Amino acid sequence: MSKLPNLAVVGATGAVGTVMLEILTSRKNVWGEIRLIASPRSAGKRLSVRGEQVEVVALSTDAFEGIDVAMFDVPDEISAAWAPVAAEAGAIVVDNSGAFRMDPDVPLVVPEINPEQTRNRNRGIIANANCTTLAMIVAVAPLHREYGLKELVLASYQAVSGAGQAGVDALHDQLTRVAGDRALGSRTGNVRNAVGDDLGPFPAPVALNVIPWAGSLKDGGWSSEELKMRNESRKILGLPDLKVSATCVRVPVSRGHSISVHAVFGSEVDAEGAREVLRGAPGVILVDDPANGEFPMPIDAVGTDPSWIGRLRRSLDDPRALDFFVTGDNLRKGAALNTAQIAELIAAEFVPATR
Amino acid sequence: MSKLPNLAVVGATGAVGTVMLEILTSRKNVWGEIRLIASPRSAGKRLSVRGEQVEVVALSTDAFEGIDVAMFDVPDEISAAWAPVAAEAGAIVVDNSGAFRMDPDVPLVVPEINPEQTRNRNRGIIANANCTTLAMIVAVAPLHREYGLKELVLASYQAVSGAGQAGVDALHDQLTRVAGDRALGSRTGNVRNAVGDDLGPFPAPVALNVIPWAGSLKDGGWSSEELKMRNESRKILGLPDLKVSATCVRVPVSRGHSISVHAVFGSEVDAEGAREVLRGAPGVILVDDPANGEFPMPIDAVGTDPSWIGRLRRSLDDPRALDFFVTGDNLRKGAALNTAQIAELIAAEFVPATR
Repeated sequence: MSKLPNLAVVGATGAVGTVMLEILTSRKNVWGEIRLIASPRSAGKRLSVRGEQVEVVALSTDAFEGIDVAMFDVPDEISAAWAPVAAEAGAIVVDNSGAFRMDPDVPLVVPEINPEQTRNRNRGIIANANCTTLAMIVAVAPLHREYGLKELVLASYQAVSGAGQAGVDALHDQLTRVAGDRALGSRTGNVRNAVGDDLGPFPAPVALNVIPWAGSLKDGGWSSEELKMRNESRKILGLPDLKVSATCVRVPVSRGHSISVHAVFGSEVDAEGAREVLRGAPGVILVDDPANGEFPMPIDAVGTDPSWIGRLRRSLDDPRALDFFVTGDNLRKGAALNTAQIAELIAAEFVPATR
Repeated sequence: MSKLPNLAVVGATGAVGTVMLEILTSRKNVWGEIRLIASPRSAGKRLSVRGEQVEVVALSTDAFEGIDVAMFDVPDEISAAWAPVAAEAGAIVVDNSGAFRMDPDVPLVVPEINPEQTRNRNRGIIANANCTTLAMIVAVAPLHREYGLKELVLASYQAVSGAGQAGVDALHDQLTRVAGDRALGSRTGNVRNAVGDDLGPFPAPVALNVIPWAGSLKDGGWSSEELKMRNESRKILGLPDLKVSATCVRVPVSRGHSISVHAVFGSEVDAEGAREVLRGAPGVILVDDPANGEFPMPIDAVGTDPSWIGRLRRSLDDPRALDFFVTGDNLRKGAALNTAQIAELIAAEFVPATR
C-alpha cells in the first residue's frame, strides 16, 4: 500500500470534532481525503479543515465507502451502534466514546504508553481513553516504568467543557449572574437563588462552587467517571491489580482537567529522580518551581498538547510514595489529540516502511 | 467565681472578626462585657454585637485590663507578639493564628474532638486549628474513634476567602472581566491577558482556574498549608505517627473549603457503618444521596455550622479504606465558630458547677 489513507471524522460538528479539525489542520498531513460526517441535521454544513471548505455528509452506511480510518467523536450510544458498521465497511475505527474501552477485543491506546496495542484490534476498533484518565496517565506511566506503580489515590478538578459546549455555556451564563455580587458566597442558598434553574448539564450551580460528581451512579456509591479512572488506568498500564481510588469533582473552569495524584510505588522514590524521569518523557512538560509561581494550571495548559506536571513531593511518611499535580487540555490530549495520534499510527501502516 | 466573664475580640474589624461578631450575636450569651480591639487605625469605629453598638479600642497592654478571655483573629506575627501580653495581663487567650499551634505547651482544640485539652494551657494560650484542617478533622474524628485511623490522603478545594476579603475582591474583580467571553478558556494565556496584574493575594488568576498552591514554600516542595494539615491532624487526634499526604489547591469559590479524603483505617470499614457513625457525630451533617443530587458543596455549606460530609464509598481495592468528600465554612467552623466554641468552654469554668 502506498496511497495516503482516507479519513472520516464522525461527529465533526461537536465540541471535540471542532478541536479535531483544528488539530488535523495544524499537524503533519498524512491523509488523502478527509470526509466530515455528522447527524443528518448537520449535513450540508461546510467546515474548514486543512484550509479547505468541506461539506458535512450525514451518518449512514454508505458514508464509510472508501474510508480507511474513521474517528468517532460522538456519544456512547451512537458509537455503539455505528462503529461496528464502519468497521464492517472496511474502516479501522478510532473511537473516543466509552462504548468499547473495556471490551477485551478492543485495545485502549495512549500512543506515548502502549502504541503496540493498536495492532490488537480484533474488532477493527481502537478505543481512546477518558479525558481525565488521559491527562493523568501520560504523566504517571513514565514514573511507573521507573519505580513500579502499586496504587493511585486521585482527586480531580474537571472543567465544564468535559460536559460539552453546554457545560461552557452554563458556566458563563451563571458567572454573568454572580460576578458582580461579592457578598453572594457568604450565605447558604444565595448562589442557587441567583443562578435559578439554569444548571445546564450539571446537578447544581457550578459558578462559585465545586460539585463532587461527574457521570452516573454505580454500585457502592461510585460515579461512572471514578470507575473509568480505575479501570482504564489498569488496562492502559497493563496492571490488572492496580489499586485505584478516585474522587471526581467538577470545578468552575472552562477547559483543562487537573488531577491531584498520590502514587505509591514498589520501590523507593525521590522527587529529583522523578523530575529527571519526567524531563525525558514523551507528552509531558515539567512545571515545578513553586517559589516562582510555576505549577500546572488549566489557564496555561489549555490549547497545548502535553500533560503539565508539577508540585512533585516525596511523601514525608512513606519513601515509596509521590504526590504531584497534573493538568491537561481535556479536549486536546484528553480527546481529539490522542485520537489523532492513534489514527496517525494507523496511517503509518499504509506507507511503505522504507519511506 | 460566678460573674459572667469579660471577652475581648482582637481583630474585630477583619474578615474573621466580622463573622465572629455575627456568631457572638446569634449564640447563647455567656459573656459579661464584650470589648472590641483592633489596630489603632480602626480605633473609634463602632461595630454591632449583641444588638449594641460598641466602640473599637486600639490594641495595647491596657486594652486587656479586666478581660478574662481574649480571642485573637489576627495575622501570625500580631498573635506572636500580643497573645503573650494578653496572657500576662490575666486573660486566657484563644488564638486563631498559626503562631502557637505546634507549641507543646499550647493545646490545639476542636471542641467536638478534644475539649479536655483546654485545661492544658500552660502558657495561658489555646490554639484554634487551620481552616482546612478543621472542616476535615470534624468528620474524620468519629470515624477514627470507630475504626482506628492510620493514614490520610487529602486534596483540597479552598475558597478565596481563606486569603481574607482581598481574596474575595480579587475573585469577583476577575470574574467580572472573564464572565462574558465564553471562548476565553480555550487558549493558553487568554485568562492571564484578560485579568492582567489584578491577582490580589494569589500567585496567578483564580477565575476560570485552579491554583495548586496555598501558603509558603517549605522543605521538600511542600506548602505551609499542606504541612499544617499533616501536623495539626496528628496533634488534634493525638496520633503522632499518622501518615498524611495533603495537596492544597485554591479554587474560584468565594467561601467554603472542601476536601477529598482517602482514609485508611486499622480495621475493616463499610460505608453504611460509617454513615451510621456520622449520623450521630457532633458538628457533622451527612449529605450522601448522589442519585438525588445530594453531596457536600460550598454553596450549601457556607453560613452553616457543621462540616458537611458525603460521597462515602469503601475502596474497591482495600477493605480498610474509605473515600469521601467534606465541605465546611472556612470563616465559621474553620475560624470564628471554633474559636467561639473554645471560648465558651472556658466561660463555663467561670460559672459554678451547680448551675
